[in-house]
Amino acid sequence: MNQFSRYYIVAAATLLFISPLRAQKKNFTIKEATLGMYTTLAPDRIKNASWQPGTDALWQVVKEGKKQVWKIADYSKAKPATYTINQGTYPFEVKSAPQLTWIDDNEAYFVNKSNVVTGVLIRDKWKWTHTAALPENAANITVDKSKNIAYTIDNNLWIQDNSINRNKVAVTRESDKNIICGQSVHRDEFGINGGIFFSPKGNYLAYYRMDQTMVNDYPIIRWGTVPAHADLIKYPMAGGTSHEVTLRVYNIATQRTVTLKTGTRDKDHYLTAVTWSPDELFIYIAILNRDQNHLWLNKYNATTGEKIATLFEETSTKYVHPTHPLTFVPGHDEEFIWQSERNGYNHLYHYTTDGKLIRQLTHGKWVVNDIEGIDAKNNKLIITTSKESPLEKHIYTVDIDNGKLTRIDNEPGLHSATCSPDGKYVLDVYSAYNTPRNTYVYATDGSLTQEVLKADNTLAGYNRPEIKHITLKAADGVTTLYGKLILPTNFDKNKKYPTIVYLYNGPNVQLLHNSFPASGNLWYEYMAQRGYVVFTMDGRGSWNRGLKFEQATFRHLGDVEIADQLKGVEYLKSLPYVDAGRMGVHGWSFGGFMTTSLMLKAPDVFKCAVAGGPVMDWSMYEVMYTERYMDTPNDNPKGYEKSNLLNKVKNLKGKLLLIHGTDDNVVVWQHSINFLRNCVSEGVQVDYFVYPGYEHNVRGKDRVHLMQKITDYFDLYLK
Amino acid sequence: MNQFSRYYIVAAATLLFISPLRAQKKNFTIKEATLGMYTTLAPDRIKNASWQPGTDALWQVVKEGKKQVWKIADYSKAKPATYTINQGTYPFEVKSAPQLTWIDDNEAYFVNKSNVVTGVLIRDKWKWTHTAALPENAANITVDKSKNIAYTIDNNLWIQDNSINRNKVAVTRESDKNIICGQSVHRDEFGINGGIFFSPKGNYLAYYRMDQTMVNDYPIIRWGTVPAHADLIKYPMAGGTSHEVTLRVYNIATQRTVTLKTGTRDKDHYLTAVTWSPDELFIYIAILNRDQNHLWLNKYNATTGEKIATLFEETSTKYVHPTHPLTFVPGHDEEFIWQSERNGYNHLYHYTTDGKLIRQLTHGKWVVNDIEGIDAKNNKLIITTSKESPLEKHIYTVDIDNGKLTRIDNEPGLHSATCSPDGKYVLDVYSAYNTPRNTYVYATDGSLTQEVLKADNTLAGYNRPEIKHITLKAADGVTTLYGKLILPTNFDKNKKYPTIVYLYNGPNVQLLHNSFPASGNLWYEYMAQRGYVVFTMDGRGSWNRGLKFEQATFRHLGDVEIADQLKGVEYLKSLPYVDAGRMGVHGWSFGGFMTTSLMLKAPDVFKCAVAGGPVMDWSMYEVMYTERYMDTPNDNPKGYEKSNLLNKVKNLKGKLLLIHGTDDNVVVWQHSINFLRNCVSEGVQVDYFVYPGYEHNVRGKDRVHLMQKITDYFDLYLK
Repeated sequence: MNQFSRYYIVAAATLLFISPLRAQKKNFTIKEATLGMYTTLAPDRIKNASWQPGTDALWQVVKEGKKQVWKIADYSKAKPATYTINQGTYPFEVKSAPQLTWIDDNEAYFVNKSNVVTGVLIRDKWKWTHTAALPENAANITVDKSKNIAYTIDNNLWIQDNSINRNKVAVTRESDKNIICGQSVHRDEFGINGGIFFSPKGNYLAYYRMDQTMVNDYPIIRWGTVPAHADLIKYPMAGGTSHEVTLRVYNIATQRTVTLKTGTRDKDHYLTAVTWSPDELFIYIAILNRDQNHLWLNKYNATTGEKIATLFEETSTKYVHPTHPLTFVPGHDEEFIWQSERNGYNHLYHYTTDGKLIRQLTHGKWVVNDIEGIDAKNNKLIITTSKESPLEKHIYTVDIDNGKLTRIDNEPGLHSATCSPDGKYVLDVYSAYNTPRNTYVYATDGSLTQEVLKADNTLAGYNRPEIKHITLKAADGVTTLYGKLILPTNFDKNKKYPTIVYLYNGPNVQLLHNSFPASGNLWYEYMAQRGYVVFTMDGRGSWNRGLKFEQATFRHLGDVEIADQLKGVEYLKSLPYVDAGRMGVHGWSFGGFMTTSLMLKAPDVFKCAVAGGPVMDWSMYEVMYTERYMDTPNDNPKGYEKSNLLNKVKNLKGKLLLIHGTDDNVVVWQHSINFLRNCVSEGVQVDYFVYPGYEHNVRGKDRVHLMQKITDYFDLYLK
Repeated sequence: MNQFSRYYIVAAATLLFISPLRAQKKNFTIKEATLGMYTTLAPDRIKNASWQPGTDALWQVVKEGKKQVWKIADYSKAKPATYTINQGTYPFEVKSAPQLTWIDDNEAYFVNKSNVVTGVLIRDKWKWTHTAALPENAANITVDKSKNIAYTIDNNLWIQDNSINRNKVAVTRESDKNIICGQSVHRDEFGINGGIFFSPKGNYLAYYRMDQTMVNDYPIIRWGTVPAHADLIKYPMAGGTSHEVTLRVYNIATQRTVTLKTGTRDKDHYLTAVTWSPDELFIYIAILNRDQNHLWLNKYNATTGEKIATLFEETSTKYVHPTHPLTFVPGHDEEFIWQSERNGYNHLYHYTTDGKLIRQLTHGKWVVNDIEGIDAKNNKLIITTSKESPLEKHIYTVDIDNGKLTRIDNEPGLHSATCSPDGKYVLDVYSAYNTPRNTYVYATDGSLTQEVLKADNTLAGYNRPEIKHITLKAADGVTTLYGKLILPTNFDKNKKYPTIVYLYNGPNVQLLHNSFPASGNLWYEYMAQRGYVVFTMDGRGSWNRGLKFEQATFRHLGDVEIADQLKGVEYLKSLPYVDAGRMGVHGWSFGGFMTTSLMLKAPDVFKCAVAGGPVMDWSMYEVMYTERYMDTPNDNPKGYEKSNLLNKVKNLKGKLLLIHGTDDNVVVWQHSINFLRNCVSEGVQVDYFVYPGYEHNVRGKDRVHLMQKITDYFDLYLK
């Protein structure tokens, strides 16, 4: 053999060796699997989008070289031109183009740390004013259309008014830190996410005042200092003394406050759906009793605090669950839209302010997700619904006069809507199983459809698993459940694979959607790349399927949910490639409760499990959520007993890893600690890990550590 | 084959099969391995032994049928008769014969819950008086010879005097719960175990008063209540503000108190070796500066509090470590014995109360463990020493006039001495490698040797491992270290075995003794039965080997200890049957520090490890202990940095399980939590478990769970 031919053979062999490697797709790293969809693998999106009022202009922030700049697209033209806006000069260094909130056609503001900067747009150039330099610990900063600024300092509410002097006034002066003003109440249940309500014309500031002095303390240890110290939080546990909330109205001009007379009989009731009347004269509140089975929609005089009327009541043998404020019909200040599940699915009801029902606007065995905008000119609401499928969300207009529905979007998937203030346009951002993220602008009257961005598939270079979308019958034999099966990337139907069930199955959460990626989570795909079958399914009790589906679990959480998940297990066991002897289960929060419940109530099914932030005893979970689904421990002792996992530790057969954030203020640490205590006392071996300084979940870069820990545990016991 | 022969063959096969089983000895259960030596497998012992003053009678409690009764043995006779004592009638039901404390020749008392019962023995029958029914939360109950009773209620000290009215008087009325009177101080360091010191004639009550208002709080979460709550303890961390202790003297007759003038310059110094003069006029205190390198033996006037004199001083470039009070020479109220390590080993020094050294009584490269009694008649002390071997403890008399030593006991092993009040007799309870527990009575003048009890070997029916007692050279090449090797019970020298190192290696602890069982711990034998080699060794820094040995670690804990333990590893690796690829290490407290240090500083040695209650950063350990061995963080930043494990988590290669008691008030929970936090932050995987409600260790029945957990971990990664 001569030199040349030897060289040739080696080169050819090298080529042969390299070429299949080049063709092979990458597996995800654990970091990509955990954070990739929010970082390096995030599909492209338009950033900081906003509609400029009174115009046809969509604003967004775009990177130009190293700088971020504003661009606008003007949809008044058939082919919209995009052009860059002169940012003007900021009163201090602002690194990237900030998120604007419009307060008028050519006026907007942004908040940078504790600074409020307002700007006027004159001939495509901004002129900025440093309107307020609030104290560094200012929070809940809220700016109204008349440029009053409300904010909280610790437990008190302050205002910097829109007068020339911009007076800073303490709206409240509560010396007890457990009386909290101007913040979200009722532990963010009932759709509540803030406690500041400026009146429409900016003359009044309504706010929540929550007195939780009577609520039990719960200690959270702060490990970041040496020595550690305990912060006491107020945590009302099911059946225990709860906080008392009132709504107060502050007159900005007179600096006087009135308290709405929401009643003294039942001080621990819930004040939900707080809504100003457009004329500022009245405030509407959906008062819900502590039992959560009786709602009164009340109208109060905003200046005297007197109750004017109860417009209507809603009652239930289970619970009423208001989560949306009233939506007034533009140009008809005596009419509003009320959202209610009274007929089994969240639908829209057109009322007069006398409490007269004009008509039920929407009907059917699907839910209205929310009202996204209003087209005043055409008297239409823009809404999102599950009308096509419980796995999808689509954008519709609904005619307020007759309830006529018109679909706006065109493609299957999970759509979100950002409407222009006048309802003329909607920005639709959606994804579907195989659509990473598409962005369209529609005119809501159907006159315009404009593609804005089609994101590339960031996962194209990766070794992706096959995904089977399935439906099953629930344990009742009737109800359709949605699930999916993710097959190992090296799938061989003649092999048997270890299998992981990921679940949540609690109220207000739905895991299954027609969205990107089809798997739902890259960690599932990572596990598929490691040779696992991954299965996930939303059983009864979960979200977006109507009241009957959700309320199947009423007063006995962890009962039909377990039955339904075991239907999923039955299905898995019917698959020849699922190794029934190597099945694992994992979930967090309610999913941690479900995971632990499965290990104790069906101890022969799963070989190993990882339960994060698990509820172990509903009597130690908070009042609002727990009593809605379980009533109180006194009213429902059997339900609490049956769902209590603390006294069932002896049933454990498989390997169970519990994980908790030490600072968890949602499912408090005591749940898993007391479970461990009982395991120790009963001689039951269980595994444990804690994430110091983390609350109810582990987010950010350290989530990679968490997912590695969970992966390692399954690898140890299932591979 | 006929019916008979078939039967015969089956029967024979059964016999053949059963017979080796019958011969085979049992393995320990995990429960026996953990608790057996204190419960079902405890060698027999004599119970509640006490010498009756002024007699030759040894009392003990014996079971007669279902009852426990007192028996006495009278050693005035050559062949002592044992007879039962009439217990008399108790003032309330007393289930078993209580432990007596003698206050005179025929007078004794016992404490039952918060009751003090005194008795007079008249013609071998007790007559009992219910002397005091103290409050239920009374603690530290102390009765003096004149039947004054001192006790604490929370942080205050009370007395019930011996007058006819038995007045109950609050000696202290501190309203701040962080000022603590009548209790042990300085976190039980310096041999301190109580804070109440009655004067010899019962006219005064001296007590410690500890002001810890200035000390940092540390939160301990109590999980037993729902919701959990935080108790704040005072925990002074190295270099931080420490508590301030004074000694006060209460005159029982006048009810007036004086504070000894122990100095105001250095308020956080240590008040050790508190001793009354026999005439009650003076109190001696060994004052030790906070740096712990300068001791002043001071004499104070007990009625005025004035300092009379400094008798002598002891200084060291490292530390002085007083742990014993003065022992006055009977009949010579101006002479006392002082114990000191000033010449490298704890020895006895005979002093006058003028501070004149009469003579060093004992000498040599061994330590006096303690003074156990005094034979006043013959002017001799009864002491225990390590003279024969650092692994043994023997009983000697030492002549106060000339230091002449006479050994009392006869057999090798670890002896303990309970002397009669006049020093005429000593009760010797000892064990050795193969001696479960023997009990002898000796006359200290050598005139009597009487066997009391030879306990049977409770482990005779078990499958015991072979144990090799070894010596090695420390890393300095000179110092002798003692170790032992426990071989698998199924040992085959041609096989390779997984190997576990158990260690402590910190100050004041010695693991290796010539005592029963030879293994030192049945769990080691349990692991040997499971096929492990177990190794343990006391390296430099550990106890009972003199100052040079102990102080080799001064200012750099975890340095030469690691070097010495690695010498042990070197030895293990030289053994053909040790599998160097399957080695594990385990220790608790200082041993947890050592275990973690080994995993981070010698990361290629051990495949897996279990560290319990580990110190991770000496700056978070308490002042008294830490500053003795490490000085303060300010004085010794390099030493603290080098020993700090929190910033070395990235070195971890092997599997490491950390275990902590949630209520640990010795090595606070923050040590392991902060280690975890850094592991999470650095992406390092580590395992964890906590024992809710447990302090610095897991004792009692739940210890079985702990040892099972540790066993499982080694089995998982080493087998």
